[in-house]
Amino acid sequence: MNKGTMMEWMGIEFTEAKEGYLKAVMPVDNRTLQPMGLLHGGATIALAETLGSFGSALLVDLEKNDVVGQQMTANHLRSVCEGVVYGEAEIIHRGKTTHLWNIDVKDEKGRLISTCRLTVVIKNKKS
Amino acid sequence: MNKGTMMEWMGIEFTEAKEGYLKAVMPVDNRTLQPMGLLHGGATIALAETLGSFGSALLVDLEKNDVVGQQMTANHLRSVCEGVVYGEAEIIHRGKTTHLWNIDVKDEKGRLISTCRLTVVIKNKKS
Amino acid sequence: MNKGTMMEWMGIEFTEAKEGYLKAVMPVDNRTLQPMGLLHGGATIALAETLGSFGSALLVDLEKNDVVGQQMTANHLRSVCEGVVYGEAEIIHRGKTTHLWNIDVKDEKGRLISTCRLTVVIKNKKS
Amino acid sequence: MNKGTMMEWMGIEFTEAKEGYLKAVMPVDNRTLQPMGLLHGGATIALAETLGSFGSALLVDLEKNDVVGQQMTANHLRSVCEGVVYGEAEIIHRGKTTHLWNIDVKDEKGRLISTCRLTVVIKNKKS
Repeated sequence: MNKGTMMEWMGIEFTEAKEGYLKAVMPVDNRTLQPMGLLHGGATIALAETLGSFGSALLVDLEKNDVVGQQMTANHLRSVCEGVVYGEAEIIHRGKTTHLWNIDVKDEKGRLISTCRLTVVIKNKKS
Repeated sequence: MNKGTMMEWMGIEFTEAKEGYLKAVMPVDNRTLQPMGLLHGGATIALAETLGSFGSALLVDLEKNDVVGQQMTANHLRSVCEGVVYGEAEIIHRGKTTHLWNIDVKDEKGRLISTCRLTVVIKNKKS
Repeated sequence: MNKGTMMEWMGIEFTEAKEGYLKAVMPVDNRTLQPMGLLHGGATIALAETLGSFGSALLVDLEKNDVVGQQMTANHLRSVCEGVVYGEAEIIHRGKTTHLWNIDVKDEKGRLISTCRLTVVIKNKKS
Repeated sequence: MNKGTMMEWMGIEFTEAKEGYLKAVMPVDNRTLQPMGLLHGGATIALAETLGSFGSALLVDLEKNDVVGQQMTANHLRSVCEGVVYGEAEIIHRGKTTHLWNIDVKDEKGRLISTCRLTVVIKNKKS
């Protein structure tokens, strides 16, 4: 049995990473559908929040800092009912205590499904 | 094997429903944790989007209309690492073509974990 | 000539203040209308951001801290074309470094025009 | 006396327009400052909402449709205390009933001050 985290349960896999950029793929299946047979908006946002949080974690010293998602906004533009979706996170602002990410989620044809903004707070572990 | 939807995979269960109000409980476990052992912000938002969407579905004639989540904003305020969380959705605005929901997610002690706003669009199936 | 700030230019006046709560009134006139003769959504949000920022300023030691609006989300629900609107800010979360405010803007009949969420960051002046 | 709209009061001037794109400049002065002498976040958002709304108005038949700002999210990243700021709106999604705009506001050196997302609803006047 899978003893992992939400990311593993949902089948999210990272496919590309560079400084301030992260990409992942997520299946559209039982685990991510809502009852009408469409990708659950919450699954899309979970993918987006995973990407932004991991992206920030790669940019800071995790022995000294915690990385915390603080604010998420998501605009859902299209529905998708099968296959996979791709999430692509790019950092917009890299401050000392705050990161802002844009995360676009697209379908297999490259059409924009949802576009998200995640604010991540970098907290010093001592304070 | 569970052939259900995201909601079932995540263990979300509705506990109370009345017009313009919906409540549910969600376990904090492998399915909803992020790697640091805390509830994944994406799980919280998936719970919130589930509540608002179902809440709207209960208010319209689904044979004539589709109910689509359009815009979500979420502010994460506290972390939680075990037990369950409770999501409570209340409708703020019930227009002909748009619903706005506030969804608060609280821990077992009643402390506010996240507070969310979901815009749902009611689309006539014919148009 | 008025040498004041945006708040004065727009005619915003505070009418009530207590800890974690602030209320103001704003005229709907040339200064706040858009070309269709309706209250400009940007005016509503400026009122909301004024209320949340001032509300936070009243809660911290301004000799030691700066108060900075970081993130605003606003849902516009109704239009208004004359008279005044009332903005009412209530604090949802009062952390050491972050405040979250809900600000509701209503018309003279008490109908909800817009509902907003403002995240304010409290920054130590030394750091 | 200026009998105009909020846009005129604030000194917003359009400088460039093409399909799905609009640019404007706004002075940072008494009309747009908050008490600490910094550009009011609400002024930035009013500029952004002006740009997205006008951008949508240019794309639809205004004799048959109304254009209404429905949802705004703004992330404030930097402060500015003098000169002018530039707002640049680009359409992300152009649906039949909904437009989504990204609006970036930058200072004179091209640094990003705030980044905003505006959802505009296109309403048929008859319905």
